[in-house]
Amino acid sequence: MKRRVSEIAEAIGARVVGDGGIEVSKVASVRAAAGGDLVFIEDEKNLDSALHSKASAVIAGDFAEGRDTSKVLLIVSHPRLAFARAGEFLRERTEHQPGVHPTAFVHPSAKLGAGVSIDANATVDGEAAIGNHTWIGAGCAIGEGAEIGEDCKIYPNVTIYPGAKLGNRVIVHAGAVLGSDGFGYVRDPATGRHEKFPQIGELEIEDDVEIGANTTIDRGALEVTRIGRGTKIDNLVHIGHNCQIGENVIIAAQAGFSGSIVIEDNVVIGGQVGVGEHARIQEGVMLGGQSGVLPKKILRGKGIAFWGTPAKPLREYLKQLAALAKLGKRQ
Amino acid sequence: MKRRVSEIAEAIGARVVGDGGIEVSKVASVRAAAGGDLVFIEDEKNLDSALHSKASAVIAGDFAEGRDTSKVLLIVSHPRLAFARAGEFLRERTEHQPGVHPTAFVHPSAKLGAGVSIDANATVDGEAAIGNHTWIGAGCAIGEGAEIGEDCKIYPNVTIYPGAKLGNRVIVHAGAVLGSDGFGYVRDPATGRHEKFPQIGELEIEDDVEIGANTTIDRGALEVTRIGRGTKIDNLVHIGHNCQIGENVIIAAQAGFSGSIVIEDNVVIGGQVGVGEHARIQEGVMLGGQSGVLPKKILRGKGIAFWGTPAKPLREYLKQLAALAKLGKRQ
Amino acid sequence: MKRRVSEIAEAIGARVVGDGGIEVSKVASVRAAAGGDLVFIEDEKNLDSALHSKASAVIAGDFAEGRDTSKVLLIVSHPRLAFARAGEFLRERTEHQPGVHPTAFVHPSAKLGAGVSIDANATVDGEAAIGNHTWIGAGCAIGEGAEIGEDCKIYPNVTIYPGAKLGNRVIVHAGAVLGSDGFGYVRDPATGRHEKFPQIGELEIEDDVEIGANTTIDRGALEVTRIGRGTKIDNLVHIGHNCQIGENVIIAAQAGFSGSIVIEDNVVIGGQVGVGEHARIQEGVMLGGQSGVLPKKILRGKGIAFWGTPAKPLREYLKQLAALAKLGKRQ
Repeated sequence: MKRRVSEIAEAIGARVVGDGGIEVSKVASVRAAAGGDLVFIEDEKNLDSALHSKASAVIAGDFAEGRDTSKVLLIVSHPRLAFARAGEFLRERTEHQPGVHPTAFVHPSAKLGAGVSIDANATVDGEAAIGNHTWIGAGCAIGEGAEIGEDCKIYPNVTIYPGAKLGNRVIVHAGAVLGSDGFGYVRDPATGRHEKFPQIGELEIEDDVEIGANTTIDRGALEVTRIGRGTKIDNLVHIGHNCQIGENVIIAAQAGFSGSIVIEDNVVIGGQVGVGEHARIQEGVMLGGQSGVLPKKILRGKGIAFWGTPAKPLREYLKQLAALAKLGKRQ
Repeated sequence: MKRRVSEIAEAIGARVVGDGGIEVSKVASVRAAAGGDLVFIEDEKNLDSALHSKASAVIAGDFAEGRDTSKVLLIVSHPRLAFARAGEFLRERTEHQPGVHPTAFVHPSAKLGAGVSIDANATVDGEAAIGNHTWIGAGCAIGEGAEIGEDCKIYPNVTIYPGAKLGNRVIVHAGAVLGSDGFGYVRDPATGRHEKFPQIGELEIEDDVEIGANTTIDRGALEVTRIGRGTKIDNLVHIGHNCQIGENVIIAAQAGFSGSIVIEDNVVIGGQVGVGEHARIQEGVMLGGQSGVLPKKILRGKGIAFWGTPAKPLREYLKQLAALAKLGKRQ
Repeated sequence: MKRRVSEIAEAIGARVVGDGGIEVSKVASVRAAAGGDLVFIEDEKNLDSALHSKASAVIAGDFAEGRDTSKVLLIVSHPRLAFARAGEFLRERTEHQPGVHPTAFVHPSAKLGAGVSIDANATVDGEAAIGNHTWIGAGCAIGEGAEIGEDCKIYPNVTIYPGAKLGNRVIVHAGAVLGSDGFGYVRDPATGRHEKFPQIGELEIEDDVEIGANTTIDRGALEVTRIGRGTKIDNLVHIGHNCQIGENVIIAAQAGFSGSIVIEDNVVIGGQVGVGEHARIQEGVMLGGQSGVLPKKILRGKGIAFWGTPAKPLREYLKQLAALAKLGKRQ
């Protein structure tokens, strides 16, 4: 959708240098930009290529001020953040037709809010509640009594088990499974067979969480699995029963959390990290890719990076890697 | 469902201390318990909190005997196992309406047993056979000639490829894929292209297996992939073609098995473990999380734990980690 | 389907020793072969067991020449490749009924080629284009404007996001997700909240690619994610936004690629490998299972194997492992 640069500037809190009346229609990378596009740069060294690109307007930091250019500049203190917001502002809204597609099945006892859209071949079971303006993609299966908030986007072929609760503005990508049984058994010493430990707890996903494609999150065994407000989870992540994930946590692809783990707010988890049961990762810790955290371990230190298996402070681990490299050369 | 404590005691083989006539309706954790709940403790140090909880009855070991309390006690030798069985005894049976939902498609040549329930938007292809009282969840795709036993639960959006065979009481969580083509190609040295090696074998899953959400199990290339009786597999696990997984094996989330691996009975595989092709893991071995087993390697030793990549006996690996830590400090 | 050995020999370029008029109906392993089966051996040491098997015909190298046997021999220089082709030649073609199943939904503005087959409960959104003779399995969700080429096989419950493009003869196994949003956020330092970076780029999958079950491939953020011709991807792999995967690349199960990675042609990636953002893996490199490649790292060397985290040349890494083992023993 076309918007004047001055409107965008107002929306994202930028100062316009040049003609604010020109229009742009979408965001783009500097490399791929065409006329009508809005791009951004964070670093002065990329300023020239942005100014020589085909973009119509450039979001940049103070460093761009005073440059003699025919491009319209939007000057902000955080160009990347401003660009993200401009992208949201310009985003083509996919218009999901409100209503229930004739091939979908919605149980008569399900409660649908205003403007809800249920796509083809989706299933919404009894007593489920779908909030206003939420979209349920094709082929989704929403279990009995599940509750989904307002303005959520549930992409196709997602499965939500009975009773799971999602807040508002939650985005769930295709194929994700929310609220499945946790992995808990008790071995009968007499027969050697594993008998199922009850997996009857709950799953609560708070507002503004985004969940990646084919990610799986188990319900609690007896209590609750909780994903805190604003947490973002990538594809193919596994979160086991009873985990308590804080707010604004970042979890990269293929990370795995066994049961009863506590991840405090603002933690950053790299790809393919594994965390053992009952571990706790304190506020603001960063875990490098493929790290492993032992069961019951506590990692502490705001802004401290850990790496390796078992995970240790990055600085310490790098010393070990260096020592090992030296030793290997002596062989 | 409400049950008298005396009934539960009989079902799980417990001795009642106190009024066996009181009723409980579900199992719970000590922390979350309310009146009418049944809890358990394994350790005497948790006895006081259980007795001070709101639970109506407590499963405990001999250590609880003779305590002066108003709670009803169920004394057993394995409290956790007894609790699991009590949970099963008290479990609300989800009543899947027998019959085929009008939005499901069942091919006329498919054979459905008594009391089978096929949910909305599920598909059952020709010549498939579904055993008595099995439930097929919404959006499942059951391929041509697939055979599913009795009392199985196939959660929504599961795909079962043509010809795959599942035993009785098998539980398959949402999004799992059973019987997909294995990953086998032959490179043509002339063109550099990878041509598909035949993936025309079978998949057999025995009785009482449970398979986690979004797990994938490939059919054999020319022979059979087999998952033994009572084996439990967590979410997002990959099992490649021709693998032979024994009985009562435990496989934690995101573990991966390339082709033609043999896992003997009672093996325990930690999360994110990777096993190379043609490896064999002998009876009763335990593999720590994120371990890697090289192709063709044989791991032996009942009750022996292995860890690391390449996996070595835990004791040996811990020594290596300690040596490395010491060396790192000297840097 | 039954074929005379002479026909097969012609199709795969083999020389027949014995009666080319006999018929075989399928390929098999030596161990499982029955009468009417065609087997192969690559190594002279397996010749005897092949000749004593129940197979009717044996594909073998020159080494088998002149053996006195009642079996029919097909002599070729690459027995495994010849066997793969014979398997393709003999493969039972699954006949997907052309047409749209009555329970499927195809938007009136979607374009279906000749002989297209859309299975039960599948959904094809507006403006999507499906090429000639392509099969869309049960429960698939094909998004608005997606383009799928000719002779593709899209197994059940696959989700293809709007606008994704697939070439010809692409095979996508069940549950895979193609074109999902990449994992990109910008943290607002004022609120600590992660705001979504635009994920509006494209996904292009070239001809002859095969994609495993429950694998996820994200669209570009602002540009394109591309999977090159002939590349084969196993189950549960994650490929992040903006990745450029070359031609004839092999990617084993559960490998993960964060954003903006370049994988050149003919690379081989082991299972559970993790690659950090903006890394580049040059032509012909092989990466051992569970290796980790740091962000921005470049791995070079045709035919060179790397292993470990951070990945180093195999030879170097093995020396380090040996040194560590020695050190551990001294503890």
